[in-house]
Amino acid sequence: MADVVVIGAGGYGGALAARLLWRHPWFELRHVTARTDAGRRLDDLYPRHRVPLTLEELDLDRHGDVDAAVVAYPHGASAPVVAGLRERGVRVVDLSADFRLRDRDVYERWYGEHGAPALLEGAVYGLTELYREDVAGADLVANPGCYPTATLLALAPLARAGAIADVVVDAKSGVSGAGRTATEATHFVSADENVNAYGVAGHRHSPEIDQELAALGAPVAATFTPHLLPLDQGELVSCYVTPKREVDAAELQGLYAQAYGDEPFVELTDRPPGVRDVRDTNMCRISVHADERTGKLIVFGAIDNLWKGAASQAVQNLNVMFGRPEGEGVE
Amino acid sequence: MADVVVIGAGGYGGALAARLLWRHPWFELRHVTARTDAGRRLDDLYPRHRVPLTLEELDLDRHGDVDAAVVAYPHGASAPVVAGLRERGVRVVDLSADFRLRDRDVYERWYGEHGAPALLEGAVYGLTELYREDVAGADLVANPGCYPTATLLALAPLARAGAIADVVVDAKSGVSGAGRTATEATHFVSADENVNAYGVAGHRHSPEIDQELAALGAPVAATFTPHLLPLDQGELVSCYVTPKREVDAAELQGLYAQAYGDEPFVELTDRPPGVRDVRDTNMCRISVHADERTGKLIVFGAIDNLWKGAASQAVQNLNVMFGRPEGEGVE
Amino acid sequence: MADVVVIGAGGYGGALAARLLWRHPWFELRHVTARTDAGRRLDDLYPRHRVPLTLEELDLDRHGDVDAAVVAYPHGASAPVVAGLRERGVRVVDLSADFRLRDRDVYERWYGEHGAPALLEGAVYGLTELYREDVAGADLVANPGCYPTATLLALAPLARAGAIADVVVDAKSGVSGAGRTATEATHFVSADENVNAYGVAGHRHSPEIDQELAALGAPVAATFTPHLLPLDQGELVSCYVTPKREVDAAELQGLYAQAYGDEPFVELTDRPPGVRDVRDTNMCRISVHADERTGKLIVFGAIDNLWKGAASQAVQNLNVMFGRPEGEGVE
Amino acid sequence: MADVVVIGAGGYGGALAARLLWRHPWFELRHVTARTDAGRRLDDLYPRHRVPLTLEELDLDRHGDVDAAVVAYPHGASAPVVAGLRERGVRVVDLSADFRLRDRDVYERWYGEHGAPALLEGAVYGLTELYREDVAGADLVANPGCYPTATLLALAPLARAGAIADVVVDAKSGVSGAGRTATEATHFVSADENVNAYGVAGHRHSPEIDQELAALGAPVAATFTPHLLPLDQGELVSCYVTPKREVDAAELQGLYAQAYGDEPFVELTDRPPGVRDVRDTNMCRISVHADERTGKLIVFGAIDNLWKGAASQAVQNLNVMFGRPEGEGVE
Repeated sequence: MADVVVIGAGGYGGALAARLLWRHPWFELRHVTARTDAGRRLDDLYPRHRVPLTLEELDLDRHGDVDAAVVAYPHGASAPVVAGLRERGVRVVDLSADFRLRDRDVYERWYGEHGAPALLEGAVYGLTELYREDVAGADLVANPGCYPTATLLALAPLARAGAIADVVVDAKSGVSGAGRTATEATHFVSADENVNAYGVAGHRHSPEIDQELAALGAPVAATFTPHLLPLDQGELVSCYVTPKREVDAAELQGLYAQAYGDEPFVELTDRPPGVRDVRDTNMCRISVHADERTGKLIVFGAIDNLWKGAASQAVQNLNVMFGRPEGEGVE
Repeated sequence: MADVVVIGAGGYGGALAARLLWRHPWFELRHVTARTDAGRRLDDLYPRHRVPLTLEELDLDRHGDVDAAVVAYPHGASAPVVAGLRERGVRVVDLSADFRLRDRDVYERWYGEHGAPALLEGAVYGLTELYREDVAGADLVANPGCYPTATLLALAPLARAGAIADVVVDAKSGVSGAGRTATEATHFVSADENVNAYGVAGHRHSPEIDQELAALGAPVAATFTPHLLPLDQGELVSCYVTPKREVDAAELQGLYAQAYGDEPFVELTDRPPGVRDVRDTNMCRISVHADERTGKLIVFGAIDNLWKGAASQAVQNLNVMFGRPEGEGVE
Repeated sequence: MADVVVIGAGGYGGALAARLLWRHPWFELRHVTARTDAGRRLDDLYPRHRVPLTLEELDLDRHGDVDAAVVAYPHGASAPVVAGLRERGVRVVDLSADFRLRDRDVYERWYGEHGAPALLEGAVYGLTELYREDVAGADLVANPGCYPTATLLALAPLARAGAIADVVVDAKSGVSGAGRTATEATHFVSADENVNAYGVAGHRHSPEIDQELAALGAPVAATFTPHLLPLDQGELVSCYVTPKREVDAAELQGLYAQAYGDEPFVELTDRPPGVRDVRDTNMCRISVHADERTGKLIVFGAIDNLWKGAASQAVQNLNVMFGRPEGEGVE
Repeated sequence: MADVVVIGAGGYGGALAARLLWRHPWFELRHVTARTDAGRRLDDLYPRHRVPLTLEELDLDRHGDVDAAVVAYPHGASAPVVAGLRERGVRVVDLSADFRLRDRDVYERWYGEHGAPALLEGAVYGLTELYREDVAGADLVANPGCYPTATLLALAPLARAGAIADVVVDAKSGVSGAGRTATEATHFVSADENVNAYGVAGHRHSPEIDQELAALGAPVAATFTPHLLPLDQGELVSCYVTPKREVDAAELQGLYAQAYGDEPFVELTDRPPGVRDVRDTNMCRISVHADERTGKLIVFGAIDNLWKGAASQAVQNLNVMFGRPEGEGVE
């Protein structure tokens, strides 16, 4: 048994992490904190999660008396809280971008000044399937962004095979990806019966994708464009790879079967996956296709942006960090 | 005044064409025909279109006594009907693929035997903005597919400028694009809260796109992938162009301003367009972006698949064919 | 020709009124004003309405120099503006509740102090089909609420026939009815895949419904409960009438045929109407049913809450006020 | 451990029952059968359920060698299969209407000839919360319809208190309630952005509701009207009760607290429940309100039509029948 706190449980990702940990057979959820919703019951704010705890204002002296923490603060706000937790010896999974980019300069170009640069070096990028062993020994895990999670799982086998010369990633996300804040963009009347791109040629997940593709063996600048779709949870990435060398259909299928055949949370399919098939799960569902007419390799990856793209992958990482069965509490 | 018939008015595209022509100030809608719904009132089948005519079984001797016809039959079924209409001197806009591909061999590879190959040579590809003068003199206009309409409008200025080395087209369509037939894919429970690709590396709109890109000056094999989205009407194409030569942001904007500045049914926007903005209109809304990080040129085009992608473009073409103001009855 | 201003064109109802008046063949839209969006172009805020005017801050001295005004302010804020317009001789259609309730005490119990009580007596309740003659001579028309519009059109024939002993009105509305303000309730993630009642036993449209039912001959306290549905535009009222006397199916159909047979904007149908059938129209679509098992009379009324429930009915009223054809600019 | 078969696992309800039983800690799912989808893998037909079994054609000799069966056949088709299972000593939960109505004449008036009338007397109506003890000893449980489940849970405390003189039930259901068959009504384009009533004054759930209300102490003919909503899973009933005697707010709350305070699958809330709050759960969420203006008592009940309205209630009943913890496998 280990005690855990969720810091920032008022948002969609944090609230779901709290739900998963509340029902986790081994972790014990001690506290949930929130900045703007402190004082409200979590099961009043999110009835469907059925977590009968009251959101408290963060007090590291009280809430830091745990073994583990999931931090679900916005970028920038997270780093100092993570630092405070680490000082108290708490092992942390951080859902923000604050510890995802290894290069402080790159971070500061996209996000502004870093609040705890000393911790960057020890942080592990927590895409569990790709960095399982590093996660196991980590005290600080940077949970990947939702788009990088789907994109990197979709592209890793090709990147490792040195087969990517260029790649276009057309990503589609449900509205929950935009967070709980009520804005013009998240208004039902704006999103319903609509689809549009956003963050064109400048989304903050780009440097994260590029960093990790390079680490996997594909030092490219990916063209990444997210789109907002009229659905709640779910994310699909459509990846169009210009191959560096010829990769025929058989090799393509083989690469993915080898990479993911034993992965409990990756499913390979023949037909293009739909996000319905992964809703409310930690699954990533992938199909690969060779387009003989154009020579492109096409890979689709579908996840639930709030689950595998955030909260359930955080719990998956906690499980690995503490030596628990990887799927405990997320299946 | 000219008399017009809509043949195949039971489907979404034909029914909308009937609605537009029923209210058209110059064309007079004489008959509506249908194969499986003959005997039903059109305003019973589509109350919202409010066309108080009864669908009849096609009888060319009776229904061919008109000046113009919109044919909205499936691929293959259309050609013989169009031939019969042409024999009677009726000028035709055909919504099927039967007269879109200039090369009979290409047609037959994708669709099977052609039913009226003698008419292929005289058919005009009716993307009005690109072929206005040809449409004006045509007796047979092949109305473009919905995906080619959005894609070609989005790419034409770059194609004409000789700037396209390679292009990936990631297309997103509402469910009405799949037609009125009730199938597993069009069931609400399948499409709702879902998104998935279909027709990967083999959609029939590919040869049509390639043919027209080549005609415009870009002899490439476009990578074209459509996706099904949980919305009714609306289609967005996200085009990722690898440029043949350097095109900076200023030239890019200039090319599109020059091409479309005077077009009544093309709107250029700074922000990526949403399909809501063109719903129930003949508009194509386009934005262009240069991605400095990756060198790609990105173009978005949004249309209503049933309007500009089918029925209202058919009426636009009829207007041009008969010397009427181009926007009559579709504004 | 008459000059018209829309005051409060930043909200959904006002913006749609501006769109309809911008294209109206007789009224000329001179100005559009807004409180929080002044300075923005209306076609930037609502691209789909395509009104190329800039929203201005209200200045009655400048904007009051017109023949007519549509005021789309919130309850309470509207009355003083309407008073200022009336002082300048402008004829007004007001979309707020400020002039709907004839009894000042009732108004103040539900809405707080009234800002221009002297105008109450002269205001006409603008449910066009029921009060056409009064509207024709009016200088100030209180446009009905969306729920009362559908409910009263659905119940008027029974109320006038003295046949209503009791009535339950279960109303269902799309999210646009909640207005443009981004809130937890209008967030896509809250409304999507959801349905719930709100304002139970205390919605402000209740006194308006009761007042008008009494005026029509049914002095009852209607049980009125609105529900929020995951759709954009559209409103359905399901009315369950306990009859005061026996009304058989034939009499029931006769009452409605007599009341609405000649009404251009009311459609009687056999099957229960769907809101899709009236989207983007000024139509109210009604079906009536006698439940022999229970003795209840059941009436369904479907409208588009933004059109017949607000903006298009406002234009319909303006047409009547100025002696124009009733459907001009709204068909 | 007990072996179980799901007969008719190709439909939404049967497939979900198979999913729940596949993961049930005590029941062992031995077979899944289907009529039209035999030969397909269940995880091909429903990837999200992740049940790696192949649907077989029903063969009672092979598939009847189990302890328990969930039968998810249409009305009429179910009775003979249930009879065959009972002959082999299999304990059955039947999801059809075939054993819900105690009076054979009533059944045959609404559904046609009964296929196994001898079994009617021993069948138990399986609304678990109301008939737990009878279910415990039953060999044949008729799982309630989705609408009766929500309606009866919403009204039972008032019915038992003798407080219902008359009741109107306005029900709203997601499209999954219409089943998996692709029809004009279940086409995305028909249901999206729409809402309409259906089965007015004649839905087959009416006699079931009336039978059970009478059994609870309220011999009334309920006015029941279902509506189709643009969402997948979820059902809300809005019940408007004309009380037989005065029931003040305090008594009302007390009745429900007493009835449901200890029920694990009923939640009482102050605010009207939304169907989002019960999605993918066995929960029924209820709120009660007294409308002082009109004297009506208003009760809302929200369930997931596929879970508590069908499959999870079936498992709940199996648990009770076999002496297992009631929530095993459905929490």
